[in-house]
Amino acid sequence: MLLEAVYHRPKMNWAYAYDDYTLHLRLRTRKGDMTEVHAWVGDKYAWDQTEELVPMKLVLSDKRFDYWECEVKPPFRRLKYGFLLQDGHESMWMTENDFHTERPGKPDRLYDFPFINPVDVFKTPAWVKDAVFYQIFPERFANGDPGNDPENVQPWGGKPEVDNYFGGDLQGVIDHLDHLSELGITAIYFTPIFAAATNHKYDTEDYRKIDPHFGDAEKLKELVQLCHDRGIRVLLDAVFNHAGRTFDPFVDVLERGEQSKYKDWFHIHEFPLTDKDGRPNYDTFSFEKHMPKLNTENPEVKEYLLGTAEYWIREIGIDGWRLDIANEVDHHFWREFRRRVKAINPDAYILGEIWHEASPWLQGDQFDAVMNYPFTDAVLDFVARGTLNASELASAIQMQLSRYPRQANEVLFNLLDSHDTPRLLTMCEGSKAKMKLAAVIQFTYSGTPCIYYGDEYGLDGGPDPDCRKCMPWEPEQQDRELFDFYKALIAIRKAHPALRTGSIRFKGSSGSSEEDNGTLLAYERRLNHDRVVVLVNNSDKAQTLELPAKAAETSTGISAGLAGAGTQGTAGTSAGTSPGSLPWTQLLASEAVRLEQAEDRQTITLPAYGFALFAAGQPN
Amino acid sequence: MLLEAVYHRPKMNWAYAYDDYTLHLRLRTRKGDMTEVHAWVGDKYAWDQTEELVPMKLVLSDKRFDYWECEVKPPFRRLKYGFLLQDGHESMWMTENDFHTERPGKPDRLYDFPFINPVDVFKTPAWVKDAVFYQIFPERFANGDPGNDPENVQPWGGKPEVDNYFGGDLQGVIDHLDHLSELGITAIYFTPIFAAATNHKYDTEDYRKIDPHFGDAEKLKELVQLCHDRGIRVLLDAVFNHAGRTFDPFVDVLERGEQSKYKDWFHIHEFPLTDKDGRPNYDTFSFEKHMPKLNTENPEVKEYLLGTAEYWIREIGIDGWRLDIANEVDHHFWREFRRRVKAINPDAYILGEIWHEASPWLQGDQFDAVMNYPFTDAVLDFVARGTLNASELASAIQMQLSRYPRQANEVLFNLLDSHDTPRLLTMCEGSKAKMKLAAVIQFTYSGTPCIYYGDEYGLDGGPDPDCRKCMPWEPEQQDRELFDFYKALIAIRKAHPALRTGSIRFKGSSGSSEEDNGTLLAYERRLNHDRVVVLVNNSDKAQTLELPAKAAETSTGISAGLAGAGTQGTAGTSAGTSPGSLPWTQLLASEAVRLEQAEDRQTITLPAYGFALFAAGQPN
Repeated sequence: MLLEAVYHRPKMNWAYAYDDYTLHLRLRTRKGDMTEVHAWVGDKYAWDQTEELVPMKLVLSDKRFDYWECEVKPPFRRLKYGFLLQDGHESMWMTENDFHTERPGKPDRLYDFPFINPVDVFKTPAWVKDAVFYQIFPERFANGDPGNDPENVQPWGGKPEVDNYFGGDLQGVIDHLDHLSELGITAIYFTPIFAAATNHKYDTEDYRKIDPHFGDAEKLKELVQLCHDRGIRVLLDAVFNHAGRTFDPFVDVLERGEQSKYKDWFHIHEFPLTDKDGRPNYDTFSFEKHMPKLNTENPEVKEYLLGTAEYWIREIGIDGWRLDIANEVDHHFWREFRRRVKAINPDAYILGEIWHEASPWLQGDQFDAVMNYPFTDAVLDFVARGTLNASELASAIQMQLSRYPRQANEVLFNLLDSHDTPRLLTMCEGSKAKMKLAAVIQFTYSGTPCIYYGDEYGLDGGPDPDCRKCMPWEPEQQDRELFDFYKALIAIRKAHPALRTGSIRFKGSSGSSEEDNGTLLAYERRLNHDRVVVLVNNSDKAQTLELPAKAAETSTGISAGLAGAGTQGTAGTSAGTSPGSLPWTQLLASEAVRLEQAEDRQTITLPAYGFALFAAGQPN
Repeated sequence: MLLEAVYHRPKMNWAYAYDDYTLHLRLRTRKGDMTEVHAWVGDKYAWDQTEELVPMKLVLSDKRFDYWECEVKPPFRRLKYGFLLQDGHESMWMTENDFHTERPGKPDRLYDFPFINPVDVFKTPAWVKDAVFYQIFPERFANGDPGNDPENVQPWGGKPEVDNYFGGDLQGVIDHLDHLSELGITAIYFTPIFAAATNHKYDTEDYRKIDPHFGDAEKLKELVQLCHDRGIRVLLDAVFNHAGRTFDPFVDVLERGEQSKYKDWFHIHEFPLTDKDGRPNYDTFSFEKHMPKLNTENPEVKEYLLGTAEYWIREIGIDGWRLDIANEVDHHFWREFRRRVKAINPDAYILGEIWHEASPWLQGDQFDAVMNYPFTDAVLDFVARGTLNASELASAIQMQLSRYPRQANEVLFNLLDSHDTPRLLTMCEGSKAKMKLAAVIQFTYSGTPCIYYGDEYGLDGGPDPDCRKCMPWEPEQQDRELFDFYKALIAIRKAHPALRTGSIRFKGSSGSSEEDNGTLLAYERRLNHDRVVVLVNNSDKAQTLELPAKAAETSTGISAGLAGAGTQGTAGTSAGTSPGSLPWTQLLASEAVRLEQAEDRQTITLPAYGFALFAAGQPN
C-alpha cells in the first residue's frame, strides 16, 4: 500500500452533502493499489449503536490514482467516519491523522462531518443538467433591424476586425429562433448586450441599459418571452470585474481626479490617472487601460452591481448569469451575489468564467458551475492537437471529475470553443470528421454542452477577432450535413438520461498498454437501465473492436459491454448472454462504420476518424 | 521522485494571501524526496517580462511528507505559478494538471492565484499572538459575593457533582485579578455566564442576561473594565448551536406545540415534542433533550443570536467570542457572524470549538482560530499516554501546522485541558514533572497558550464533573513551586518573540532511528536574531546531549544549534565557532540539569523528566 498516495480531507469534494439527507464520501488511493475500500461510519453521539462499514465503489481513475465513493444517509444528519483500506494482502484503518493496522478501539479521532445544515447544501439548478446551450455573440448572429445599425456598418459576412461592426442585434435573434429550436437548443448564453463602446461589449458603459445597436429592454423582454415560450432559457453576461472607459463613474474620475465622488469605485494607485510603458497606475483587466477594475468591496459599487443582477432577473425574467473574469472578483461579493440572485430566482444558473480548477468557487456558496475549459483542453488535446492519447484523455477527464462535488459536475458548462478561442473547426484544421469526434465526446458527457453559434454550419475562424465572423444565413454557406449531425446528437442526448447524469467508465484507456494504440476511445455511460457506449477512432486508419451482442447486467456498474478495445480485438466475455441482458443497438455513427453480427457479439470497424454510439436498456 | 506524494491545490492552505500584498505558496512532497523545490511564478498578463524561479524552503516535515513554502509579492496582486521539483537526479515541472520533464513552453496551464482582493485576506487579531490565556469556569473560580449564591450552595472545595453549586461568581474573579496579573495572564476565556439552569450554563435560558448567581451586566462591565486596565482581554462563550430547556421560545414550543410562533426556531420532526429510547423527536446537542438545537437558518433566530453577539461587544466591550459546538452550526451563520462582529470590533478574537481538522472554518471568512485539540492530543500522547515518541510528536505537530494558513497557526488556542477533559495533572497521573514537560511544549509553541484555572496550583481532577473542582485559595492547598514555574515560563514566552511566531525546527525526531530512543524531544524556535532551544526528556532515565557553545548563523534557518540529540551525544559541528555567532544561555531548566562547558560546546544532562530552555541572539 502506498500510503503517501492516500488522500482525504474534510468537506470540499471529499465529504459533502449531495442533498439535505445524503453525504458523499470520497477517498483517493494509488491507481491499482486497493482491492476494496470501506467507509467506517457512525453517529458520533451513539457510535456503538450505529457504527458500520459501507463499501465504497471505484468510480474514477486517472493516470496515478483511483477514486472511491460511497453515499451515506446519516439518520441524525451527522457522521463520524474513517476508512478501511484493503489491497488483498493487508488491511489499514485510516483516521483523521494516521493509519492503523489494527481497528482503533475508540472512534474519537475519526473524521467528522459535523451536521448537514440545509443552507450549506450545494444546490444547483436541475434544468441545467438537461439543457443544450448555444452561445451567441450578438453583433455577429443576425441583423434583424437595420434601423439600429452602428455607423459604418460593414456588409454581413465581411472580415471581422477588432473594431468593426456588422449590425447584429436582438431582433436578429428573434428572427432565427426557429433555427435554434430545429437544432434542439434549450438555452442561450449571450455575450454582453449592455451599452458599451466596442463590438464585444466587455467594456460596459451602462449596466442598466441594452446597447442601442442591439435594441432596448422591451426588445429583450420580447426575446426572452419568445424563448421561454419555446422552452429556451436565457443567460446574460455580467462583466462585474471591470467597467469600460465610458462608464460614467470612471469618466468622472478621469475628469475630476481625486475630487471625484467615484474615486473609490476603482483601485487607483495615484492621481492623475495615466499609464507608463503600457501599465496604468490603476488596476485594470490585464493592463487594458480602457477596462478599469471595479472596487467590489466598496458598498456603493457592490449595491450597484448586485442591484443590476437583480434588476435584469426581475425586469426581464432571465434565467441566470455568466460571470466574466469571475475569479478576479472577491469571494464576499460572489457570496452575496448568490444569496440575492437565488432569492429572486432559486433556479437561476450562476456560471463563472474560470479557466482553471475552480474548487474555491464551487462549494455551494458562490457559483453553480464554471466554463469547463479543462474539459475543452483535454478534448482538443486528444482530437485536434494530438498531444493526449485516449488513455490520457480518459485520465484528464476523470481527474477533473474528481475535483468537484457531483452537483457541480452535473451542471458544468462544457464548451469546445467560444468568442475567446479559435473555432472548433479551425482547431481541427478544417477536418469536419475530427470536429464531429470532439462534439460526440462533448454531447455524451455530464454537464451542459454548448455550441458556439455557427459551428453547426461549419463556420471557421482563428483567434479573436477571426472567431467572431458573421453567422452564415445563405443556404449555400451552410453545411446542412453538419447541422443534421448536431441535431441528431442533441436528440440522442435528450433521449438518454445516461448521457446527462450517468456514470462514466472508460475502456482501453489503461495508459500506454500494448493493446491500446492510444487513438481508440471507448466509454460507457450508464444510469439505471439506460446505457450508451461511445466509440471514437481518432486515427487515420480504420480500427476494429468487439461488443457483446447484448449488454450484461453487472453489479459493479463497470462497463462489461466493451471487450478488447484496440485494433487487435480480443474476444468478448460471455457475460453478454446472461439472463436479463439486452441487445446493443446503434444510435448514430459516422459513414462507413461496418458491423458484423455473430451470435454473441458484434464486430465494429470504425473508419479513420469514425465514431459510433450504441445503446442498450431503456431510457427512463 | 514519488509523484503520487506531491500535492498542491489552489487556495486553502496551499496558496493564500498572508496580507494584502503577500502570497504564501506551499507544496507537499514525499519526505526526503526532493533536494530543491522552486516556485515558477509570474504575472499572467505579462508572463515573459515577469516570470522567475523563487526558491522554496523546507519548512515542515511529518512522518511521510516534506512541506515547502515561499513568499511572493506579486507586483500586480495576481500570480500565475507552477513548481520545479529537483531530487538531485531529475527535474520535474509541475503544472495544474500534470508533470513535465521539460519546461513547458507556454504558461497557460499553470496554477492561478487570480487576484488578491483585500476583503478576502484572512486577517487575525495581532494581540492574540502575544496573549497568554486563562480559562475560568465561573461557578468554581471564587465566590466573591455570597449574596448571589444559589440555594443549597455547598462549602467551597467540596466534591463537584453534575448538579451541585459552590457559589463562584464574577465578583470572585474581580477579587483575584492580582493572582492572574502575577502569573502574567493577558486574556481570560470564561465558560458561559448567561442565565441558565445548570452549573456549567451550556443550556442558555436568556442570552441577554448574566446569570443572577454570577452577577449582572454592571458587574460584568466592572470586571471587564478592571481587566482592561490591567491589560487583560476578556473572551465570552457563545452557545449558539443549541439553547436550554428553560429558553423562553423553547418553553413556548413545549407548551403550545405546533401553535407556537417559535416552532421554526428549532428543528422539530413532529409534534408533540417527546423522546423515545432517549432519542428526542427534535434535533438536539447529542441526544440531550434539554439542549434543543437552534435553527440558525431562520432569519429571526439568526437576528436574535447575531444581535446577542453584537450586544455584549457593544455593551461591555468584550474582546471576542468562543463558539461552542461551532462546527454543527451552518457556515452561512458564521460568515455573517464574522462580518458583524468584526464591523464593531475588528480586533475581536473569534474562536471556534472544533476538535477536528478545522480548515473549512479557517479560510478568512469565519473563525480566527479553533481550540487546538489535535495539539492537545499530540502533547498528551507523548508526555502522558506514551503512545507517541518524540519523532511522532514532531510529526503530528508539523502535520497540524501544514493544514492551516500561517495567520491561523499564529493564533490557534493551544490548551492541554479544559472543563471538557480530565485535568492535565491527572492525565499525567499526578506527576508534576511530566505536567511541566507538557507545559514547556505548550508555552514554546506558536499560537496562544491557555491555562485551565487551578492547574498552576496543582489542581487535579478526572473527567467532568471532577475536572471542575473549586479553585484552591488556601495557601496550603497551593503548589507555589508550580505557580512559579508557570510564571517563569510565561515571562520567557513574553520575552522571546521566537517562541510566539518564530519558525520551528525539530532535531532528533527522524522516526525510529538508532540514535533516537524516542523520549528526547529537542527543537529550536527562531525569529530573526531571537533563538530559543527547547529540550525535553520524557524518560525515567537521565539523557545527555550537546549544544555548540555558540549559535551559528545559518542561511537555511534550520537549527544548527543542536548536535547529536540522543543518549549517545555525537560531536557538535564546528559551526558554533563561526564569526557572528552568539553564546547559548540557559533560560529555565528543571532541577538537576547538569552542564559541562567545553570551549566549543556544552554537554547537557537532563535528569529523568527534566527539561531545559536555552536562548541565543537578541529578542527583538
